[in-house]
Amino acid sequence: MPRFAMGLRYDGSAFEGWQTQPHRNTVQDTVQAAIAKIAGHNVTVYCAGRTDTGVHARQQLVHFDTEAVRPVSAWVRGVNNFLPSSVAVTGVKPIDPAFHARFSAFARTYRYYFYSSPVEDPFRPFMTWVHYPLNLEAMRKASQCLIGTHDFSAFRASQCQAKSPVKTLDRVELVDLGESCYLEVHGNAFLHHMVRNMVGALMEVGLGRESEDWVQEVLASRDRSKAAKTWPARGLTLWEVHYPSHFEVSELFDVRFVEA
Amino acid sequence: MPRFAMGLRYDGSAFEGWQTQPHRNTVQDTVQAAIAKIAGHNVTVYCAGRTDTGVHARQQLVHFDTEAVRPVSAWVRGVNNFLPSSVAVTGVKPIDPAFHARFSAFARTYRYYFYSSPVEDPFRPFMTWVHYPLNLEAMRKASQCLIGTHDFSAFRASQCQAKSPVKTLDRVELVDLGESCYLEVHGNAFLHHMVRNMVGALMEVGLGRESEDWVQEVLASRDRSKAAKTWPARGLTLWEVHYPSHFEVSELFDVRFVEA
Repeated sequence: MPRFAMGLRYDGSAFEGWQTQPHRNTVQDTVQAAIAKIAGHNVTVYCAGRTDTGVHARQQLVHFDTEAVRPVSAWVRGVNNFLPSSVAVTGVKPIDPAFHARFSAFARTYRYYFYSSPVEDPFRPFMTWVHYPLNLEAMRKASQCLIGTHDFSAFRASQCQAKSPVKTLDRVELVDLGESCYLEVHGNAFLHHMVRNMVGALMEVGLGRESEDWVQEVLASRDRSKAAKTWPARGLTLWEVHYPSHFEVSELFDVRFVEA
Repeated sequence: MPRFAMGLRYDGSAFEGWQTQPHRNTVQDTVQAAIAKIAGHNVTVYCAGRTDTGVHARQQLVHFDTEAVRPVSAWVRGVNNFLPSSVAVTGVKPIDPAFHARFSAFARTYRYYFYSSPVEDPFRPFMTWVHYPLNLEAMRKASQCLIGTHDFSAFRASQCQAKSPVKTLDRVELVDLGESCYLEVHGNAFLHHMVRNMVGALMEVGLGRESEDWVQEVLASRDRSKAAKTWPARGLTLWEVHYPSHFEVSELFDVRFVEA
């Protein structure tokens, strides 16, 4: 059956995560229902990164199979018509049936946005508010021990179903934008709650409760009970998904008007 | 009775405007209820600009009178504790009883944010989505006729209660940020729906439905039926309120940690 790749973007605030649930209040259920309206039959979509409750996606890639023949504009505009404004299809293209949204992806980039201020800002719904001053330089130094191939058990949620706790992070970068900050993490795969647990540990350092070396100690302990609390989903966004270039899927996120 | 000035910031999406209503789902009712918890008695707050249903405020200034003696931190943090996360107190200070949030303000700045894209972006809740390409240069040229002192009846809502339709705009600026745009309008006072109606007229030009001269014709007609539709509240924010400098109220919007 012909396979299609689809680029998605969503505000995860009102969803109970990506993955289908009986109550259907998930991004997957919402997207499948909208695609079914255009395809004329039920479809199952497979995604690059199964985001958790409240987690957002700037770039999420899915694939689905259908015999339905529709112009690209119908897949994009048509499906968007059946989606709430919190979810958007950014592009669709036919793709090699050997392509798999989850297994063809070789890396994912997540960003965790936060801002430190005595007052919560109503205009930053996609960032976590920290109502204390932070030592960003200490956080930056502490974060660097996370780069590389490690057993990340200390930052793994108890309900995590991954086969192995060993993952590789190529890049861990703390970026200060002045008004706000983000932690960007680029790796082959992530354990459940891994980014939010790493942010929790770095915040302990930023708030001056733990030393810069403490994150390294926690990592080495491979003991979840040694780490800090899981930080809120609100600040976390699946920022980018990475595929071999011959699939040419980056165009699915390139939203622009086509010249007439 | 001692008078206090308070800086506010709010996401207006879920409110039916600023002004108190019997059902109480307004910013004014919400703020008054929170202040009453700290003051220990009912208060009435007066604001710089009575924003409409769904309109946001980056800077809104209010005053209220109370005999209650509280440290500044109690007025800020205490009142914030009783506010939903869509509304924030950014600062409070005692002020000359001759000060009036509405009548002492000599000008207001509004911004109308919008973006033109084939797909709606879930991450831009405070901007209006235009799903057609826009000729920004034509809009910019068309907007310049609005500068100056004019009878703005053509852009006035039928329910407007202002005594005179004559207002002065010192600045009308269309700024292209690449990914999005805003129209900034600075003036002494505004009629009901005036900015949203001006945006509606400029959009007709931007979409190529009307010529650049048409906005001038509409303005000169003083006839509301000649103009275009009122654009959505979602993109509109009360950006700044301007007072004589001796009141020193700009510090009420300067949110930062105080050095210990």
